[in-house]
Amino acid sequence: KVIWTVLVTILGYASSLPVGEDALCTAEELAKYRIIFTGKWSQTAFPKQYPLYRPPAQWSSLLGVTHSSDYSMWKKNEYASNGVRDFAEKGEAWALMKEIEEAGEKIQSVHGIFSAPAISSGTGQTSTELEVHPRHPLVSFVVRIVPSPDWFVGIDSLNLCEGDHWMDEVSVDLFPYDAGTDSGFTFSSPNFATIPQDTVTEITCSSPNHPANSFYYPKLKILPPIAQVTMVKLKKSQLGLSAPFINLPAKSNEIIDTVS
Amino acid sequence: KVIWTVLVTILGYASSLPVGEDALCTAEELAKYRIIFTGKWSQTAFPKQYPLYRPPAQWSSLLGVTHSSDYSMWKKNEYASNGVRDFAEKGEAWALMKEIEEAGEKIQSVHGIFSAPAISSGTGQTSTELEVHPRHPLVSFVVRIVPSPDWFVGIDSLNLCEGDHWMDEVSVDLFPYDAGTDSGFTFSSPNFATIPQDTVTEITCSSPNHPANSFYYPKLKILPPIAQVTMVKLKKSQLGLSAPFINLPAKSNEIIDTVS
Repeated sequence: KVIWTVLVTILGYASSLPVGEDALCTAEELAKYRIIFTGKWSQTAFPKQYPLYRPPAQWSSLLGVTHSSDYSMWKKNEYASNGVRDFAEKGEAWALMKEIEEAGEKIQSVHGIFSAPAISSGTGQTSTELEVHPRHPLVSFVVRIVPSPDWFVGIDSLNLCEGDHWMDEVSVDLFPYDAGTDSGFTFSSPNFATIPQDTVTEITCSSPNHPANSFYYPKLKILPPIAQVTMVKLKKSQLGLSAPFINLPAKSNEIIDTVS
Repeated sequence: KVIWTVLVTILGYASSLPVGEDALCTAEELAKYRIIFTGKWSQTAFPKQYPLYRPPAQWSSLLGVTHSSDYSMWKKNEYASNGVRDFAEKGEAWALMKEIEEAGEKIQSVHGIFSAPAISSGTGQTSTELEVHPRHPLVSFVVRIVPSPDWFVGIDSLNLCEGDHWMDEVSVDLFPYDAGTDSGFTFSSPNFATIPQDTVTEITCSSPNHPANSFYYPKLKILPPIAQVTMVKLKKSQLGLSAPFINLPAKSNEIIDTVS
């Protein structure tokens, strides 16, 4: 019994291993969070092949889900679902929404879907609310990198529950992933299906290890974060009336201007 | 008193005059709806200058709000707000979300914001949930037509409350509007600010009355609907667990294929 508890505690700290995490959540009822996505894809931080025209660098809609460990939206080193492929390649959300719905109906592994509007530039912000439940405390989402072959950023199964309470605030830096479905090296590569499909892989400054890769920066050790996400728990008094934006700036890129 | 009641009843039926409508809502507590947006912008229905490349015809994210008659997101023949201008011109949602938030904080005229993912083609569907309240029974939303100078479709202050109950289902055909902020005649016109700003106007097959207009079809009496929106009230049993899609098809364009 003790060994099991320790093991589960270790698993709880390893964010890539959400197995069993949600079984431990004894927090009270529902919790609502505001999720704020910040694009940090600037020409200064990512000068190589930075897309300026038709289309310029931008972010798709954000599509997310709150769920239990019985559902997975996407996972590093595993194959992307058809829904994730459609979303990562074209920003088409329908198939992914259907997959999530089916997981919710068949195995009750999903609490709800959420989405936030697209951002029309590489730097900027978007936001929405999400709701978690003790049986569905995990958050996953994807945002497509536009333009790109099948690249995206996102979160896989982040647990907002810590034992008997909900986390007040979580911030995570985001890095680019390749959905493994379209063989393109650069932002503007033409469509060319990867057959057989590859797994989801992280794109780093040295992988794919080829100078043509848009994120290939041989002098860097790691890429700067291309985006960031923050989830802030809403107080009871903030629920149900309007969507509190927690004093965010009037323009979506004000924060970024001061940070960088 | 009798005359006032009749007058208000008349106003209740004139969807372009939402004044005072929401004061009449005596329906029970909150109601949740699934909102389904269907793009019908096909090359068959709209052959003239149909955008095929960089970018092809598509729809932005949907951004909407539930509110009282003290708030207006946009209105025909009135000037668009800065937020609506940013959204209609660039699909940039932030300023509009801030405007909505401020209306919610200052005059309690807003119940909630909702958004649905973009659609990557002219025909297709997207969907999300929204919540209305007896004091905030009106629904407004906008979806940008991409590419376009500042054109959008949407709903202005549709009342989902009918006296003492919530409507079960509402469907509305949508037609294009010009936000009055960018002087372009065609889908791919370059940016050119309209100074002074014009009001929001409906684009018809004869207005603007100029052959260069992408929607100018002199042989038609009216344009076919370029989109459609359906709102379906969710049953209590459908609330809180997953997002019921009401048996929508697996692919977002199946409905359209059978309809047209």
